[in-house]
Amino acid sequence: MAVYTEVSDDELRDFMAAYDLGHLLSCKGIAEGVENSNFLIVTDFSPFILTLYEKRVHEEDLPYFLGLMEHIAEKGFTCPTPVRTREGEALRRLAGRPAAIVTFLTGMWPRRISQEHCAALGRALAKFHAAGADFAMTRRNSLSVEDWRPLFGRIDEEEADEVQPGLAAEIRTELAFLEEHWPKDLPRGTIHADLFPDNVFFEDNTLTGFIDFYFACTDWLAYDLAICLNAWCFEPDGSFVPVRGQALLQSYQSVRKLTEAELKALPILARGAALRFLLTRLYDWINHPPGAMVRKKDPLEYRRRLAFHQKVRSAADYGLPK
Amino acid sequence: MAVYTEVSDDELRDFMAAYDLGHLLSCKGIAEGVENSNFLIVTDFSPFILTLYEKRVHEEDLPYFLGLMEHIAEKGFTCPTPVRTREGEALRRLAGRPAAIVTFLTGMWPRRISQEHCAALGRALAKFHAAGADFAMTRRNSLSVEDWRPLFGRIDEEEADEVQPGLAAEIRTELAFLEEHWPKDLPRGTIHADLFPDNVFFEDNTLTGFIDFYFACTDWLAYDLAICLNAWCFEPDGSFVPVRGQALLQSYQSVRKLTEAELKALPILARGAALRFLLTRLYDWINHPPGAMVRKKDPLEYRRRLAFHQKVRSAADYGLPK
Repeated sequence: MAVYTEVSDDELRDFMAAYDLGHLLSCKGIAEGVENSNFLIVTDFSPFILTLYEKRVHEEDLPYFLGLMEHIAEKGFTCPTPVRTREGEALRRLAGRPAAIVTFLTGMWPRRISQEHCAALGRALAKFHAAGADFAMTRRNSLSVEDWRPLFGRIDEEEADEVQPGLAAEIRTELAFLEEHWPKDLPRGTIHADLFPDNVFFEDNTLTGFIDFYFACTDWLAYDLAICLNAWCFEPDGSFVPVRGQALLQSYQSVRKLTEAELKALPILARGAALRFLLTRLYDWINHPPGAMVRKKDPLEYRRRLAFHQKVRSAADYGLPK
Repeated sequence: MAVYTEVSDDELRDFMAAYDLGHLLSCKGIAEGVENSNFLIVTDFSPFILTLYEKRVHEEDLPYFLGLMEHIAEKGFTCPTPVRTREGEALRRLAGRPAAIVTFLTGMWPRRISQEHCAALGRALAKFHAAGADFAMTRRNSLSVEDWRPLFGRIDEEEADEVQPGLAAEIRTELAFLEEHWPKDLPRGTIHADLFPDNVFFEDNTLTGFIDFYFACTDWLAYDLAICLNAWCFEPDGSFVPVRGQALLQSYQSVRKLTEAELKALPILARGAALRFLLTRLYDWINHPPGAMVRKKDPLEYRRRLAFHQKVRSAADYGLPK
């Protein structure tokens, strides 16, 4: 579950008094999200989302995340938009945590991914990249290629091999390869960096927006596509679905054409994305605190995706014409 | 967390199509409740609650629970009210579980209990008892005095003593006492039987209604009061708060006067209520499935309440004039 901090009715009433959001009718913890505590609040105006930022989110990054949501919303890209108090504050404190209220994005995330979802995602991602292009703030991707080795260093190799024999050696080899071949210069901008299906809402198969910008950062735009290839274009059994890859990449390109360099880099970016989620999931798997009420995600899913990308020779293998 | 069953967007869309509830905009699992999976759904009409009944609720009891909610709502007592499909069905199936949609009750449960909360609770409880008086269905209380010994029999006494040395013997003695002295004839009717603060909503200190009728049954009306004495009138440190007891009992009596027999029985009913929650919490504490994402409740809280009630000599000790 994703309610780590409890908010009392009194504290909440005081907190809400600073906004012009109507009369508070209800507040319920939401069993979604992993990093923060989320509440659905209902006022006589509308529903809203209240987020209390927990320890995994660095407080100094919050102005970037909230600023980005505000910026892309102003550009017309639908996403939860921070609500300001009468005094103009978006980021505040509640129950000892940094806290913000954002608008309620309608829609549900898709449980069974279709080609149509991937096509809608591709177009929306390109529009998101366009909306973020002139966002003035930047943030280093704290989970990019240079961060994987230190993260791997915090994982006990023996414990990794208990998850799957030989896993530590595989990761070590892949790390060395990626550090050597990671692209040095590609079109750069604001990326979401965590665009899994549960962060993309649809209403009757129409994409309504993205949520959860708490990994957003400044990095290669095509790396966002590489993450989506991993997160949207595989079956649960680990097999790649070419029609989804094709739908994702072609619809992205219908809005923003990928450069030659980006197309060439796609397989290695996809390997990097697979390794990034393999590493964070493996770390969480091994270091799972016994009391944490969060379902652990299987790291080996990403070992299988990585194995697929290692055999890919060009973007054509993802469904694009050569 | 209280989402045991996942509902896909496709399944939900099909399910919702049978109702006249407007267009489905959102569905989020709620991190509340322990027995069932609860979702807050938002349509362009209103928010609603969707409940999927999990294994601890017996399917054959559901018509009673839903019928009770409908009945008391018709009598003007605010509570979540089952919504029927165009074909008139309230109880249906979704994702392999029995399922129902109920109206959204505004308000939040109070985290810090005041005397005013207890006064509002007493009045509302008496009104609830009045509203349920002519409810045609009945349901045996499956957690009353004759059920405690079989439940205790399913608890390993050595494990009970690991929770607190001597606990098993204490329970055995109390069980024998209660079986001998439990009242044989008191005013009887429909009771809620689980009226903890998280099942009573307030909006700006005005009680808006009760929720979670899934322990409701036919039993002594005063037993509901005894449960409330336990659940509302103690500090977290285990000390009884007489002004809260007084507020609860006097305001209840402002609507329905307790009989002499009920007043006399109150201490033993309160001991019974304390033992009932001690036993179910102890059972859950010992038999906690390792994967279950539910916070365990401390059984010893109810051992301390029980010890208080054992010293009570009359209803006056709860704050009522002798």
